[in-house]
Amino acid sequence: MDAAVLATAASAAILAGESVRGRTSPNPPVGCALVDASGELIATGATEPAGGAHAEAVALREAGERARGATAVVTLEPCNHTGRTGPCSHALVEAGVGEVVYLTADPNPLAAGGADFLREHGVAVQHMPIRVGALQPWLHAVRRGRPCVTWKFAATLDGFTAAADGTSQWITGAESRELVHEDRATRDAIIVGTGTALADDPSLTARHPDGSLYAHQPRRVVVGSRAVPTGTNLDRLGYEQYATPEEALAALWESGARDVLLEGGAGLAQSFLSAGLVDMVQAYLAPALLGAGRGVLGGPVAATLAEAHRFTRTLVRPVGDDVLIELERSD
Amino acid sequence: MDAAVLATAASAAILAGESVRGRTSPNPPVGCALVDASGELIATGATEPAGGAHAEAVALREAGERARGATAVVTLEPCNHTGRTGPCSHALVEAGVGEVVYLTADPNPLAAGGADFLREHGVAVQHMPIRVGALQPWLHAVRRGRPCVTWKFAATLDGFTAAADGTSQWITGAESRELVHEDRATRDAIIVGTGTALADDPSLTARHPDGSLYAHQPRRVVVGSRAVPTGTNLDRLGYEQYATPEEALAALWESGARDVLLEGGAGLAQSFLSAGLVDMVQAYLAPALLGAGRGVLGGPVAATLAEAHRFTRTLVRPVGDDVLIELERSD
Repeated sequence: MDAAVLATAASAAILAGESVRGRTSPNPPVGCALVDASGELIATGATEPAGGAHAEAVALREAGERARGATAVVTLEPCNHTGRTGPCSHALVEAGVGEVVYLTADPNPLAAGGADFLREHGVAVQHMPIRVGALQPWLHAVRRGRPCVTWKFAATLDGFTAAADGTSQWITGAESRELVHEDRATRDAIIVGTGTALADDPSLTARHPDGSLYAHQPRRVVVGSRAVPTGTNLDRLGYEQYATPEEALAALWESGARDVLLEGGAGLAQSFLSAGLVDMVQAYLAPALLGAGRGVLGGPVAATLAEAHRFTRTLVRPVGDDVLIELERSD
Repeated sequence: MDAAVLATAASAAILAGESVRGRTSPNPPVGCALVDASGELIATGATEPAGGAHAEAVALREAGERARGATAVVTLEPCNHTGRTGPCSHALVEAGVGEVVYLTADPNPLAAGGADFLREHGVAVQHMPIRVGALQPWLHAVRRGRPCVTWKFAATLDGFTAAADGTSQWITGAESRELVHEDRATRDAIIVGTGTALADDPSLTARHPDGSLYAHQPRRVVVGSRAVPTGTNLDRLGYEQYATPEEALAALWESGARDVLLEGGAGLAQSFLSAGLVDMVQAYLAPALLGAGRGVLGGPVAATLAEAHRFTRTLVRPVGDDVLIELERSD
């Protein structure tokens, strides 16, 4: 397969997977692109909500007879496992696909083995390792047996989420806040502490700038033992409550969540971080300085510099007047 | 003049000016490129150290007779002022240059008027407004009648420059520290407080990774009233001391400094910021979290969010594992 055709197909598969983030758990948001021998893109597919078809099946269904002899580029190694749907590796063989290129190896022992099965049935298989952003939370989750936790905060450049008098609206600009809502619509759940639930009366919904709701809404989760008062937004919209981070993550995992967003406050973030439960960090930093106020964490997570929690930078980019920095744990 | 030729010449002029940062004060680090009618780059020039030639004169000298009919692209409007050297506007007319394109208007009332003089003498003049990084500190300085102050700090993503036990080496990586030294070699002076001078025994030199010194060394300046002990690095290398930020900046301006780097500590940075004396910020942020420790500022610079010191972002880029964010005051 021509390198340029392969790159185009990989991009199409990645975009297809990206488009279903937040709506596939406990399955991963996978994308698939089918290309014929002339290099023409025949079909794309993405994972349907749990119980529905996997990305490969969706693309094969769209391609019909044209799948015969085609190349399938898939963001994740095709599964070899009969769950609520049949194994994708079998479907690809049956459709007569000639070659399969996958971007990420399947870490799930239950589903793995798809590449081997394909090879045994005469399909050429290539692993083309490309980091697929949409799959990272699911990969973290499967590796750890609990939902992947992304801790999001918005702060001044000197690390404050509120001024000394408690004022905090708005540290970051409209573009950042819009992006936060867009991001919420790709998650399985949003977690806040009872302190935040009581102090801010948050809705924890994913809203467009005009106030209307995104089609996909994450589950609303409160961690802590204090009661959320009746009449609050969370009370009105519905929420789940757990006593500790560990209990919350266990229950969320059990009920299918793989990708959750931790939004604060500082005390709960400190608890998650200290317990080693933060896998990714999203920091929205405003070009502003306060010198004092409420810190992003409620207290120390390291006594000395050598014990600082260190991450790997995965993204840095301007967002309006602010800067978005994304980190990922490297272990 | 062809747009592509103009762009190439502008780049050459910008690079020439960039190459002499830190060695031209009180003059600005200007660059000049001469292009002939066929679009060929004939010569470039940059400001020589104070008392030496200006960028235009350097380029004209290199071009000789070929300057006749050429286009000069200059990062700053040619001066019309006889200081230690003759006016550049006159030199350009005498050399027979046909067109002058300048990227920044001269804000200095003493030197301005170069464009008018050129037009009166039959030279075509264009202002092509491009932000020239090397000139920004000088422009701030001239506007305010004191050296431009760039406050540099290195911190964790949550805003700490040292852990709770005081450990601070190293927050950021080798690439960031190398860049800080490279940057020091482009400044007129480095300023630290007496607290930093006593606690860290800094050299405040600009060093290559192998420990050797850059050719240009900034002046070493201590602000505060406590004495720097004999036998320290600063005592050995020599330094200037002033009681307050205002006194330091007045003395530095008087003696020709235009572009100074404020390196800390937190208390001095708070004083400079509160007094409105910080024009640019350089934040090196490490992908690390501490939760507690020494903040980048010694205390509040704003009582409420509406009074936060807000800046304009001018740069964001990865540096090794860290992120460098540069801000500039917008007023």
